[in-house]
Amino acid sequence: MPGSSPTEIPSERAALAQALFSPKRIALIGASPDADKLTSRPQRVLRRHGYPGAICPIDPDRDEINGDRTYAAVGQIPGGAEHALIMTPAHSVAQAIAECAAAGVKVATVFTAGFAELGKSGKRRQNAIAAIARQTGLRILGPNCLGVVNVTGRVTISANAVFEHEVLESGGISVVSQSGSMLGGIVTRGQERGLGFSKLVSVGNEADLGVGAVVDLLVDDADTRVVLLFLEALRDAPQLARAARRAFDAGKPVIALKLGRSSIGRALSASHTGAMAGEDDVADAFFRAHGILRVDVFEALFEAAQLVSGQRPPSGRRVAALTVSGGGAALVVDRLGMAGIEIVAPPPELIARLAAERIRIGDSPLIDLPMGRADGGAYARILQALLASDHCDAVLAVQGSNATYLPDSIQERILAARPGAKPLAVFLGPRADTALAMLQAHGVAGFRTPEACADALRAYFDWQPPVASIALDGAIEARLEAVAAASHPGLLNEHEGYRVLEALGIPCAETRVLHSSTQTVALGFPVAAKILSRDIPHKTDIGGVVLDIATTGQLDACVDDMLARTHAARPDARIDGVLVQRMQRGLGEVIVGYRRDADVGPAVVLGVGGLLAETCGGHVVRLAPVSIEAALEMIAAVPGLALLRGRRNRPRGDLRALADAIHKLSLLALLARPRVLEAEINPLIVRADGVVAVDAFVRFDAEQRAPHQQGDLGVAS
Amino acid sequence: MPGSSPTEIPSERAALAQALFSPKRIALIGASPDADKLTSRPQRVLRRHGYPGAICPIDPDRDEINGDRTYAAVGQIPGGAEHALIMTPAHSVAQAIAECAAAGVKVATVFTAGFAELGKSGKRRQNAIAAIARQTGLRILGPNCLGVVNVTGRVTISANAVFEHEVLESGGISVVSQSGSMLGGIVTRGQERGLGFSKLVSVGNEADLGVGAVVDLLVDDADTRVVLLFLEALRDAPQLARAARRAFDAGKPVIALKLGRSSIGRALSASHTGAMAGEDDVADAFFRAHGILRVDVFEALFEAAQLVSGQRPPSGRRVAALTVSGGGAALVVDRLGMAGIEIVAPPPELIARLAAERIRIGDSPLIDLPMGRADGGAYARILQALLASDHCDAVLAVQGSNATYLPDSIQERILAARPGAKPLAVFLGPRADTALAMLQAHGVAGFRTPEACADALRAYFDWQPPVASIALDGAIEARLEAVAAASHPGLLNEHEGYRVLEALGIPCAETRVLHSSTQTVALGFPVAAKILSRDIPHKTDIGGVVLDIATTGQLDACVDDMLARTHAARPDARIDGVLVQRMQRGLGEVIVGYRRDADVGPAVVLGVGGLLAETCGGHVVRLAPVSIEAALEMIAAVPGLALLRGRRNRPRGDLRALADAIHKLSLLALLARPRVLEAEINPLIVRADGVVAVDAFVRFDAEQRAPHQQGDLGVAS
Repeated sequence: MPGSSPTEIPSERAALAQALFSPKRIALIGASPDADKLTSRPQRVLRRHGYPGAICPIDPDRDEINGDRTYAAVGQIPGGAEHALIMTPAHSVAQAIAECAAAGVKVATVFTAGFAELGKSGKRRQNAIAAIARQTGLRILGPNCLGVVNVTGRVTISANAVFEHEVLESGGISVVSQSGSMLGGIVTRGQERGLGFSKLVSVGNEADLGVGAVVDLLVDDADTRVVLLFLEALRDAPQLARAARRAFDAGKPVIALKLGRSSIGRALSASHTGAMAGEDDVADAFFRAHGILRVDVFEALFEAAQLVSGQRPPSGRRVAALTVSGGGAALVVDRLGMAGIEIVAPPPELIARLAAERIRIGDSPLIDLPMGRADGGAYARILQALLASDHCDAVLAVQGSNATYLPDSIQERILAARPGAKPLAVFLGPRADTALAMLQAHGVAGFRTPEACADALRAYFDWQPPVASIALDGAIEARLEAVAAASHPGLLNEHEGYRVLEALGIPCAETRVLHSSTQTVALGFPVAAKILSRDIPHKTDIGGVVLDIATTGQLDACVDDMLARTHAARPDARIDGVLVQRMQRGLGEVIVGYRRDADVGPAVVLGVGGLLAETCGGHVVRLAPVSIEAALEMIAAVPGLALLRGRRNRPRGDLRALADAIHKLSLLALLARPRVLEAEINPLIVRADGVVAVDAFVRFDAEQRAPHQQGDLGVAS
Repeated sequence: MPGSSPTEIPSERAALAQALFSPKRIALIGASPDADKLTSRPQRVLRRHGYPGAICPIDPDRDEINGDRTYAAVGQIPGGAEHALIMTPAHSVAQAIAECAAAGVKVATVFTAGFAELGKSGKRRQNAIAAIARQTGLRILGPNCLGVVNVTGRVTISANAVFEHEVLESGGISVVSQSGSMLGGIVTRGQERGLGFSKLVSVGNEADLGVGAVVDLLVDDADTRVVLLFLEALRDAPQLARAARRAFDAGKPVIALKLGRSSIGRALSASHTGAMAGEDDVADAFFRAHGILRVDVFEALFEAAQLVSGQRPPSGRRVAALTVSGGGAALVVDRLGMAGIEIVAPPPELIARLAAERIRIGDSPLIDLPMGRADGGAYARILQALLASDHCDAVLAVQGSNATYLPDSIQERILAARPGAKPLAVFLGPRADTALAMLQAHGVAGFRTPEACADALRAYFDWQPPVASIALDGAIEARLEAVAAASHPGLLNEHEGYRVLEALGIPCAETRVLHSSTQTVALGFPVAAKILSRDIPHKTDIGGVVLDIATTGQLDACVDDMLARTHAARPDARIDGVLVQRMQRGLGEVIVGYRRDADVGPAVVLGVGGLLAETCGGHVVRLAPVSIEAALEMIAAVPGLALLRGRRNRPRGDLRALADAIHKLSLLALLARPRVLEAEINPLIVRADGVVAVDAFVRFDAEQRAPHQQGDLGVAS
């Protein structure tokens, strides 16, 4: 299972990287001598790109295939093969892998399809090969993958047509892709504009080596400066999280494009890769928490590489913009504006300094220079000044037709400005491939479309360092364990739920449990009465909630009536009594939820509560646990909570108390045993002074046998 | 003024088109003999593209310029010039235009900048040349424009560098652009993939000939099949509306990309073009009302041309999708999903029919075929079946690396399917310029990025026929005129406002006006009391609204108190009394507004009312008037009105009555005299049975002198 293996120790990583990227001898299992067959391609492309090692086709019936000496079995290769490429039919792959393992092969890349992507039977077949990997220590790339390429080392283990045609440019960009086909798309498009690549890895179904494991290797790869991820699903989130954090620490930005923003997109990704699909907002939270930049526009994935290479997350969201094409710049700036990124006007001292050099610019946010070639170097000097100025965090430079016909203008206007430490994004209005390649050759980020340019800048501005880990206070942990021990297993009733919230330190409405009208309750009226049963999740549907009860008489009648009606309506349900609670009023209601996503683990969600939830639906998700500061950012990110933030002279809700409650609920992520699967406060009432929970839904993991059974994300551990 | 001139009559249009696009003799005023000067370029590009007419530079000091004989003045050209290109300094342009007019020149294209885009003084200069046009009948293109190109006729009147380099391909696409620079961007990018152009027009500041006037000419242009608009602002909306409707009737789709979606984008567009910027949602309503497709992604503007050429608006929103690259298809499908466009699975009978041909496809919405070249024609046969099937309204076909290296695969897979009447969008995963050009040559829409592909399909699915015109019932008109005559001029007080709503037939809460507590009121309690004054728009700020008054005694006290307090707080305000109104309850509140947008004219807006408006903010805008059916679509388009639509077993609001009220308020657009500038019902209470207005804000045009003083949009006239 991807994700379950621990991070490799350095020497193991080095050995794996050697076998995966730089094997001295490669066994080709299932290679065809027939040039029309796809299985003949890897041998051809290895030679074409000058593979310096030995190509060893395995074929007991032939002496040679296309000039390479064959071996009857992998075990017969003198010195042994470090890496094998398996292209035999699906039913024979397990046998081939077992032979590889026995022969001391370290990595088997499986090109063959017909595994988890086919459904149940394929999944079984895939589990079988994964089991061999676990038992023998041989590592598998794939199955259903297009292979691995080490551009710098001239190792091209791939069946992708791209490598039969392209002359590969070596450079600092490495790509890990769940789509073999789109890996080809990235390479062909990137090469067109002069991007150089280091390692290209198609991970296929990730039976063993997943995206995270490959990223982990790339962190140590001296040639890799930026890692690009083309993702359809998050299949090894914990391992990817650890690798991304190592990459961040090493100063190597990781940029991800992940499909599945729409529900139809998620369903398709799931069906054609055989992976379980998670919700997109949880994936977003995952990238944010681990310092991964996420782009939304396809070409931004590789165009952003140069923009963020060598950079750290920004401290502000201010862009200075310079153009000779008002329309071209507006195409980018309009999108930046929609993403809440500000175009900042040059400050007076910068205007004055340029004026002293006889360069006049206005104080408009967009510095729009006249077209035409000869500007006496004004463009470059303004650009230089913007790059050096503290008033902005990044610079956008837009070029017009000159960029197409006079590549010199790129030299004169952009490169002459000697781009420095600040990110510089250049958008070219017309078709201008030569100019784009020229920018790339000089380490400047050029963009072919305004959408990719704006998206890359937006991704840069959304980039944050990995969140710091949070520890669970021992006293809270002990209280939670005590509550769990005293409660029903698994799903708690509402009364028990409040005990969990109280153990965390979240204020709850005062409650009593009555079993008949003969009991008295000292709470102060008005009160609410709710049927207390773990078997009735939708209490309102059977009249199990009565609000605004004003007197003892009304309450007595209500309790007897509710118990009688519930017994009649749901004779099967176990009823723990009637929960009576003082009615609470506040400025607004929110929903705070905690759940464990199947892919990325614990997450916390904040949304608008009450009727507003139906109509507004705004919510924000972060990986759990979150700090109080991060919880305050969550509150600011929900548009539907504007009223609570005190707009229009309305009283302001106690946002600090709300953030504290979000933080505390999110601490459930850290409880190892019993693990909490779900928890929700719906609603949490926000007052001008404090918050109070008037609902509590908590579900522990009743199946859990042993503590620390499954690895959690790096944050939480 | 653009927009104020009536639609040209056919013979006038033909004469103007002749002079603009196909002049026999062109005068160049201000042409330089120095090849390094921008003003030397037009002469060079006219020759380069084989202009068949006479090039006549005007220069009293020379005999010839670069081989063309010069004339001392425009009036001296034998036979006269139909078209003049003016490149002299800004201060001398008016003089040059006057000379052109005197010499019988029909169109002057003004390349010179330094007009409205510079602000006030430039605006005066621009008004002066526009006045000459009005007085003499000479038409002006520009100023501050890059010219006009007739590709088929080899007339290239332009200073754009593009035309010094490109070999122009002739075709059915015409472009009208407010950005001269991005016109070059469209041409260079379009030519790269084999798009052919007919007319290319940079309209600059639109002192006289605006976008609408040019579109009007293109409707009659035999070579033009599709019209593309690159817009920064809507400066001649009524004329563009009329032209777009003529284009729709002629079967020529008009596709617009308009900047200014973000407020910063709008501000920049306004500042650098000298135009007033409107709100983006009104622009959206304008395009929708007049049958114009709106794209959002830059390259979709020209890539969509082939997709919609020859098409009419669709009847459904269902796409069938076929791919050999799951990742590539998901990039497009994910975006379609976010736009609410459904990917439909092939129906059983289609699956069975293909199975009979030994082609197996599953019932997944995405038909994902294995990679590799030889598929025995399966791809093409599936594609053919999808194009012929009624289960979808458009087809998406995605290609992988083969498209780059084996252009034959395009022939075998796409073109062999003989695309028919249904829109077919082809996205190519890798870089594949040859394949894109090949598709274009065969009339198939190819897309270079997944974003442009999805956006073009989305624009196609959002396309609607121009809305039908609505007439104002004579009785309503008479009632409105009577109410206006009996009311204050300009802004009405709330009591008068209800009379306007009643004249339209919109139910209003029963109200009485009291002037002191001695008057009695027979309404039934509880009531609300509001100070009645045109001078106090924000009544709540001075305590001018009291709700839930339960008894006559409370009301008496309230009336006296409110009058006294208001006199004290606002001694200057004219007070018309206290408006007393029976309190109203309902299922929800909406805001229905009517206003005249400075650019596009009357519009109606529907939004969530009450506190929800603050938090949700969802609203929808349409041009006014709207039919009841269109009003129902507006209601469905506001997410915040979900509760009124009856979700979660809540009672459903009377949406028909709400639609009727929206329709009726929108009829104010048709009242010619006195014209209504603004009207708003905030809130209109929606009940399970009917609606009721509990507020009424109406402002007539007090300045209006004569009826039918200014032209309205085509819809309303």
